[in-house]
Amino acid sequence: DFESALLEVHPLFGVSEEDLDRCVEGGIIKFSPHVDKILQSGRDFINQVRTNTTPLLSVLLHGPHGSGKTALAARIAMESEFPFIRLVKPADMLGMNEIQKIQHLSKSFTDAYKSPLNVLVLDNIELLVDWVPVGPRFSSAVLAAIKGLMENKPPKGRPLLILATTSERTVLQQLQLNFMMQIAVPNVMTARELAGVMLDESMEGAFSEADVERAIGEIREVTGGGEGVNVGIKKVLLSMQTAMQSQDRVGRFAEVMGEAVAEGNAGV
Amino acid sequence: DFESALLEVHPLFGVSEEDLDRCVEGGIIKFSPHVDKILQSGRDFINQVRTNTTPLLSVLLHGPHGSGKTALAARIAMESEFPFIRLVKPADMLGMNEIQKIQHLSKSFTDAYKSPLNVLVLDNIELLVDWVPVGPRFSSAVLAAIKGLMENKPPKGRPLLILATTSERTVLQQLQLNFMMQIAVPNVMTARELAGVMLDESMEGAFSEADVERAIGEIREVTGGGEGVNVGIKKVLLSMQTAMQSQDRVGRFAEVMGEAVAEGNAGV
Amino acid sequence: DFESALLEVHPLFGVSEEDLDRCVEGGIIKFSPHVDKILQSGRDFINQVRTNTTPLLSVLLHGPHGSGKTALAARIAMESEFPFIRLVKPADMLGMNEIQKIQHLSKSFTDAYKSPLNVLVLDNIELLVDWVPVGPRFSSAVLAAIKGLMENKPPKGRPLLILATTSERTVLQQLQLNFMMQIAVPNVMTARELAGVMLDESMEGAFSEADVERAIGEIREVTGGGEGVNVGIKKVLLSMQTAMQSQDRVGRFAEVMGEAVAEGNAGV
Amino acid sequence: DFESALLEVHPLFGVSEEDLDRCVEGGIIKFSPHVDKILQSGRDFINQVRTNTTPLLSVLLHGPHGSGKTALAARIAMESEFPFIRLVKPADMLGMNEIQKIQHLSKSFTDAYKSPLNVLVLDNIELLVDWVPVGPRFSSAVLAAIKGLMENKPPKGRPLLILATTSERTVLQQLQLNFMMQIAVPNVMTARELAGVMLDESMEGAFSEADVERAIGEIREVTGGGEGVNVGIKKVLLSMQTAMQSQDRVGRFAEVMGEAVAEGNAGV
Amino acid sequence: DFESALLEVHPLFGVSEEDLDRCVEGGIIKFSPHVDKILQSGRDFINQVRTNTTPLLSVLLHGPHGSGKTALAARIAMESEFPFIRLVKPADMLGMNEIQKIQHLSKSFTDAYKSPLNVLVLDNIELLVDWVPVGPRFSSAVLAAIKGLMENKPPKGRPLLILATTSERTVLQQLQLNFMMQIAVPNVMTARELAGVMLDESMEGAFSEADVERAIGEIREVTGGGEGVNVGIKKVLLSMQTAMQSQDRVGRFAEVMGEAVAEGNAGV
Amino acid sequence: DFESALLEVHPLFGVSEEDLDRCVEGGIIKFSPHVDKILQSGRDFINQVRTNTTPLLSVLLHGPHGSGKTALAARIAMESEFPFIRLVKPADMLGMNEIQKIQHLSKSFTDAYKSPLNVLVLDNIELLVDWVPVGPRFSSAVLAAIKGLMENKPPKGRPLLILATTSERTVLQQLQLNFMMQIAVPNVMTARELAGVMLDESMEGAFSEADVERAIGEIREVTGGGEGVNVGIKKVLLSMQTAMQSQDRVGRFAEVMGEAVAEGNAGV
Ligand SMILES: Nc1ncnc2c1ncn2[C@@H]1O[C@H](COP(=O)(O)OP(=O)(O)OP(=O)(O)O)[C@@H](O)[C@H]1O
Ligand SMILES: Nc1ncnc2c1ncn2[C@@H]1O[C@H](COP(=O)(O)OP(=O)(O)OP(=O)(O)O)[C@@H](O)[C@H]1O
Ligand SMILES: Nc1ncnc2c1ncn2[C@@H]1O[C@H](COP(=O)(O)OP(=O)(O)OP(=O)(O)O)[C@@H](O)[C@H]1O
Ligand SMILES: Nc1ncnc2c1ncn2[C@@H]1O[C@H](COP(=O)(O)OP(=O)(O)OP(=O)(O)O)[C@@H](O)[C@H]1O
Ligand SMILES: Nc1ncnc2c1ncn2[C@@H]1O[C@H](COP(=O)(O)OP(=O)(O)OP(=O)(O)O)[C@@H](O)[C@H]1O
Ligand SMILES: Nc1ncnc2c1ncn2[C@@H]1O[C@H](COP(=O)(O)OP(=O)(O)OP(=O)(O)O)[C@@H](O)[C@H]1O
Ligand SMILES: [Mg+2]
Ligand SMILES: [Mg+2]
Ligand SMILES: [Mg+2]
Ligand SMILES: [Mg+2]
Ligand SMILES: [Mg+2]
Ligand SMILES: [Mg+2]
Repeated sequence: DFESALLEVHPLFGVSEEDLDRCVEGGIIKFSPHVDKILQSGRDFINQVRTNTTPLLSVLLHGPHGSGKTALAARIAMESEFPFIRLVKPADMLGMNEIQKIQHLSKSFTDAYKSPLNVLVLDNIELLVDWVPVGPRFSSAVLAAIKGLMENKPPKGRPLLILATTSERTVLQQLQLNFMMQIAVPNVMTARELAGVMLDESMEGAFSEADVERAIGEIREVTGGGEGVNVGIKKVLLSMQTAMQSQDRVGRFAEVMGEAVAEGNAGV
Repeated sequence: DFESALLEVHPLFGVSEEDLDRCVEGGIIKFSPHVDKILQSGRDFINQVRTNTTPLLSVLLHGPHGSGKTALAARIAMESEFPFIRLVKPADMLGMNEIQKIQHLSKSFTDAYKSPLNVLVLDNIELLVDWVPVGPRFSSAVLAAIKGLMENKPPKGRPLLILATTSERTVLQQLQLNFMMQIAVPNVMTARELAGVMLDESMEGAFSEADVERAIGEIREVTGGGEGVNVGIKKVLLSMQTAMQSQDRVGRFAEVMGEAVAEGNAGV
Repeated sequence: DFESALLEVHPLFGVSEEDLDRCVEGGIIKFSPHVDKILQSGRDFINQVRTNTTPLLSVLLHGPHGSGKTALAARIAMESEFPFIRLVKPADMLGMNEIQKIQHLSKSFTDAYKSPLNVLVLDNIELLVDWVPVGPRFSSAVLAAIKGLMENKPPKGRPLLILATTSERTVLQQLQLNFMMQIAVPNVMTARELAGVMLDESMEGAFSEADVERAIGEIREVTGGGEGVNVGIKKVLLSMQTAMQSQDRVGRFAEVMGEAVAEGNAGV
Repeated sequence: DFESALLEVHPLFGVSEEDLDRCVEGGIIKFSPHVDKILQSGRDFINQVRTNTTPLLSVLLHGPHGSGKTALAARIAMESEFPFIRLVKPADMLGMNEIQKIQHLSKSFTDAYKSPLNVLVLDNIELLVDWVPVGPRFSSAVLAAIKGLMENKPPKGRPLLILATTSERTVLQQLQLNFMMQIAVPNVMTARELAGVMLDESMEGAFSEADVERAIGEIREVTGGGEGVNVGIKKVLLSMQTAMQSQDRVGRFAEVMGEAVAEGNAGV
Repeated sequence: DFESALLEVHPLFGVSEEDLDRCVEGGIIKFSPHVDKILQSGRDFINQVRTNTTPLLSVLLHGPHGSGKTALAARIAMESEFPFIRLVKPADMLGMNEIQKIQHLSKSFTDAYKSPLNVLVLDNIELLVDWVPVGPRFSSAVLAAIKGLMENKPPKGRPLLILATTSERTVLQQLQLNFMMQIAVPNVMTARELAGVMLDESMEGAFSEADVERAIGEIREVTGGGEGVNVGIKKVLLSMQTAMQSQDRVGRFAEVMGEAVAEGNAGV
Repeated sequence: DFESALLEVHPLFGVSEEDLDRCVEGGIIKFSPHVDKILQSGRDFINQVRTNTTPLLSVLLHGPHGSGKTALAARIAMESEFPFIRLVKPADMLGMNEIQKIQHLSKSFTDAYKSPLNVLVLDNIELLVDWVPVGPRFSSAVLAAIKGLMENKPPKGRPLLILATTSERTVLQQLQLNFMMQIAVPNVMTARELAGVMLDESMEGAFSEADVERAIGEIREVTGGGEGVNVGIKKVLLSMQTAMQSQDRVGRFAEVMGEAVAEGNAGV
């Protein structure tokens, strides 16, 4: 399969491969044409860097909570087969103080500058700067460091692609954390897309076409009709797992998804 | 009885068993069908983790102050009979600074990762981050740590259920402390439910049916009529204890409950 | 008398007896039926703890500045004749930093846990957390510690009654510092109650009935008529002491009280 | 004269005598009946403490900037002839940190507790807590310490009078820094009072009656008529000193006073 | 070419020459008459300092993000051929604390004072003081230091030109960071100017005149018509690089530029 | 000339003479009668202190940025020929922390107290306390120290004149940093005054009367007519220096001044 093949090709592939792998545990289901478009843009940006046309390129994947940003960034990074790929995520810096965080981030960039082709995935970049909307609060020191690192041109012959993810695009704009390019990652928006997920082969036939029809009907009832779904792929997959514990899979799935749809509509 | 039986089965059950026990000192009175529904959801989530369908599941029990959240979370945790069960509560971290708190929390998670099946109860999670609405104030460092710990996937084969409680659900949303699933825990809402509590066998006949009728009448008088009660089970039980000191149990109970109902209505 | 008797009975009564004593230097004048009602509630709560019906009971005495909260809490505590009685007041922690304050508070609770029956008086609890309305400011660390200490169940067989006083009840609610029970302590509200104080035997006949009538008349004049007095017992007693320095006791008393009534009406 | 007489009587009068002396360098001109009334109240409060009727009495002299508060407090303190008199003023604590300030203040109270009769003058008490309206800012630690020191009852037989001054009475109320008694110190309010100052014997005939008339006329012209003056005695005396440098004393005095009156009217 | 010539002439040219060089990697395309005007003003200011007419002159280049401020400042500085030229930019101070930053800045000025003719480029001066609009936050210590350094007159015979750049001119005004002279640097504003860039010789014929026409047509379509472009030269050049990866260069260029124009119009 | 004469007379004149000198590098041009009036007031205040009529006198020179406050204060100080003259300015305290700043300021006052006649110039006093309008921010510790130092009466026989300058008079009022006397320093307000500057002999005939007329005409054109100029003398002199670099002196002067007039009108 893909991952083991990868390992053979790149023995120096680096420490975070398993991390990247786990980000795509649920696979990439093509529930909408957007999914392919995003992957294509990703490949283009990879090439723009590979050819050194642009020696430093920063790209932001933004979209609602659970829409699949991290999985897509990880997939694009892994497909590049660049010799240096690293994932930096908030949980890596647990309990670090500001100085340690800045050192950790700096090191990721410095490491990248040693290899001829590099991808850095900065996951949930608003949390890397400890953003909390209440206040609001954030670490200005870490923010300044990230700005500096992202502005700093890499040494000649060490092109770098930065893939960042966020569910707080407006916040990044307010913090004046700028990206050269941006990609939107949407939720599962329509009943049709939801059906696509339920019937995807990776579900191994957990739901029949009839099940799908019933589930969508019941969701609409709970949420007062309407075509819209607007729930992240992550929550859709979790709802299925929860439903598996119940005798009445379809009913329980509709119940849990109904709550999610309602919350989304209420803007919670 | 249940607790001593438990002890025999799980000699390694861990340090916080007595703690969990004391959380349910007033028992679980089934004063409304919600109580059973909550316990059933709890059992389902336990299974979702036990079967490793979802290796990391976070559930929030939210409801008004004194509605019984901690008792229910403790009961669900104890019923799981998982080899590792731990209760983390604000009073455990008294006088700790931010770093010590983060270490204490980290340790609870690390300990969990050593056992094959785990439940962590994070009680009054808004207080774990030292939330105070005036300001508002909170510890961003502890908040970031909890986010990191809750996002961090456990090692393979170490599934973990996190049961958190809060009376400040909106605050958690503002702090972007997200949970995968949520359970609402309501107050004693109606006169009928209140009667159920007063006549419950655990009260050992402290109140007769006539007492109940008189009490409810007097409460309504004090609070200007209306069917609603909207008082937490914790306060209801305390009001009974206070009433016991008085010659006129029923009168005193009605007086104290009346104040509680009035306060609730006034939104205090 | 009462205090010397007390000393004989309880040689281990502890360090703060004299402190408690000084809190009631002006005695307890029964100028209104509320005074007896408050003392009765106090006795009931003492019993609720003495009988271990409720092993941890927290009661808040709240009312305007100078209404007699501290004196009443001290009197209730002393009447309990519990082996452990302690008064904790802001002035005890003068110049301490947050950590020292938390240690001081913790120690008071830990000391209490050594004795079979305990009362802790937490005087002016809003000042224990260094509350200042400008800002507002307060010590979140001390607040969190007090919450923790007040939530923490005492060891078996060590029941504890916490009597707290405050003139900032709303603030405590905003700080989510919750009490299980509450007692309101009102000011001297009416001319009639004021007369009661002036003619009380403890005044040793400083004012005749005619003096009282004249004083009340002049106060009304100064304050533009109206029945209300709304001045704390503490200020009333002080006004008498000031009046004693003057040739014209009654006139001076009316003058000083008049200012106090006016200030109260102006909501200052 | 008074001060040298004082020195003979009280060889232990203490370190701050000269300080107190300098506060009254401009003398106390009786430009209005309020001046005598304030001094009489001062004497009464001195007696209330001297007779131990009230062992701890706190009095606040409040009024606009430069209205003579410090001079009056110093004069009252010196007239008491108490064995312990101390002036505490912001400039004494220049460059001290919060802890040093608290220690300095504590020491003043502790020193007082050693003598049988005591007066403490706390000058510009809002600056003792480093109050700045912008923000606003202040030292909560020093504020808490002052509250504690002012609430703390002195040892038996060590009665203490606290005389505090402020031009920010409302601020003290907001900071909940309470005083048992209050005295208002007004500005020079009317042309007549101003004339009284100009013609006072301490001016040694610097202005004739005709000068006064001309000056008041010109001031009115500059300020657009109106009877009011509303300028502090301190500024009035300074304006005279400035006028002395000029050929045209009266004209220059009117000019400088005119600006002061205008500023006062504009509420600056 | 220019740079290597420079090297021969000024062996002591200093450490940041390469830095300055990289700032002008995209060259200076004369897409509008403003470009020449800016360079001319720059030369005049250089002379004003060279002739010691004004021994200390501070000039601010301000304009939107990516409008070419840094490139122009670097070009003006390099053209001066002064013996001391230094670029100070935020990324140089990555991870420094306030004190280290102040020392770093001070050193740049002190170094300048050793040479007979000096230019200092302070790039993105709002980031040198760690400005973030959220809060807003900034380092008052660094700000005060920069003010001090910029006010401080250089030693006799050591004239200094300070060239600062910012995309936050209003912020600098609010921070009262004043400059003696100012130069505005505009975006590429019109379709005509955009055409100028696309057809510039430095593009080496990547786009034909027909391509330009098609691209501009498609951009107008995407953005709903209108003449305006209002995109920084930096983004225009990047969009071309991105377009190079695509089969359909013109289409992809129009797509990416269309988004940029739309964002600019939306004021994002 | 004046300065060398001064040196002979006062060998102990002190360290900051050269500093004071540089403040008046552009001379004092008498472009309006205000200039003489300010210098006369200055002489009067010098005398008020020299004669010890007022042993401590604080005077504030306030006016717009660049209106000549520092030059005037320096000139007044130098003309006094007092044995101790010192200039304290923000740049002297570059990189100092709060404690060091307070020590630096204290030392300036202590030094003054050693000499029989003293002038202290506190330049840009709002920056001495690190005032920034954004926030706003300032150092309360330094502010408190300055208040203390300015309130503190000098030792007998050591009279002190404090000359402070500010372009933020309202801010000082908000910070309650009070001065005993105030002097307003206006901008160059009218075309006539501007002409006076251009034709002043110190300009050595750089502009003819015809030049002046043309320049004023062009300025009016640029700024849309109107008589007002409202630009500080400092900017006027700088504009001349800039104009000298240009072939078309008059045109360039009008251009630069036009921008300054426009900015002033726009209230920037
Ligand atoms: N088309 C898809 N795009 C992205 N993820 C998909 C897709 N199909 C399935 N998935 C699965 O859905 C999950 C998406 O979760 P992911 O953590 O990437 O979301 P996210 O947007 O990063 O969430 P968060 O906002 O919490 O960071 C992954 O497990 C992934 O394998
Ligand atoms: N049906 C019930 N559900 C929950 N608790 C019950 C129920 N019946 C009785 N109780 C008793 O009521 C009390 C509920 O208190 P608990 O501390 O759990 O409330 P809480 O909502 O966690 O309060 P807090 O908001 O203060 O954390 C416990 O003593 C529990 O034993
Ligand atoms: N009925 C009464 N209730 C309370 N205090 C009384 C009563 N009669 C007389 N006193 C005397 O009045 C004084 C009340 O002062 P106390 O300090 O208790 O008031 P407080 O409300 O605690 O004031 P503060 O708001 O300042 O804390 C005491 O000296 C007390 O002895
Ligand atoms: N009737 C008077 N009352 C007070 N001070 C007087 C009076 N007559 C003359 N003086 C003189 O006026 C001056 C009053 O200044 P003082 O410092 O006491 O005012 P203040 O209100 O304390 O000012 P600040 O608000 O600055 O503290 C003193 O020099 C005092 O000697
Ligand atoms: N006429 C021009 N003016 C300025 N830069 C130009 C011009 N023509 C081409 N360029 C190139 O465009 C780029 C401008 O980027 P530069 O970093 O100077 O912009 P900036 O305004 O400083 O951006 P930022 O706001 O991010 O600091 C440089 O690579 C420069 O070589
Ligand atoms: N009549 C005048 N008054 C003041 N300065 C004058 C006058 N005529 C010429 N000058 C010159 O103008 C300049 C005034 O600058 P100065 O630094 O004193 O202004 P400022 O108001 O202190 O500015 P800032 O607000 O920046 O502190 C000095 O160089 C001074 O020599
Ligand atoms: Mg993600
Ligand atoms: Mg609970
Ligand atoms: Mg009290
Ligand atoms: Mg005073
Ligand atoms: Mg730039
Ligand atoms: Mg100046």
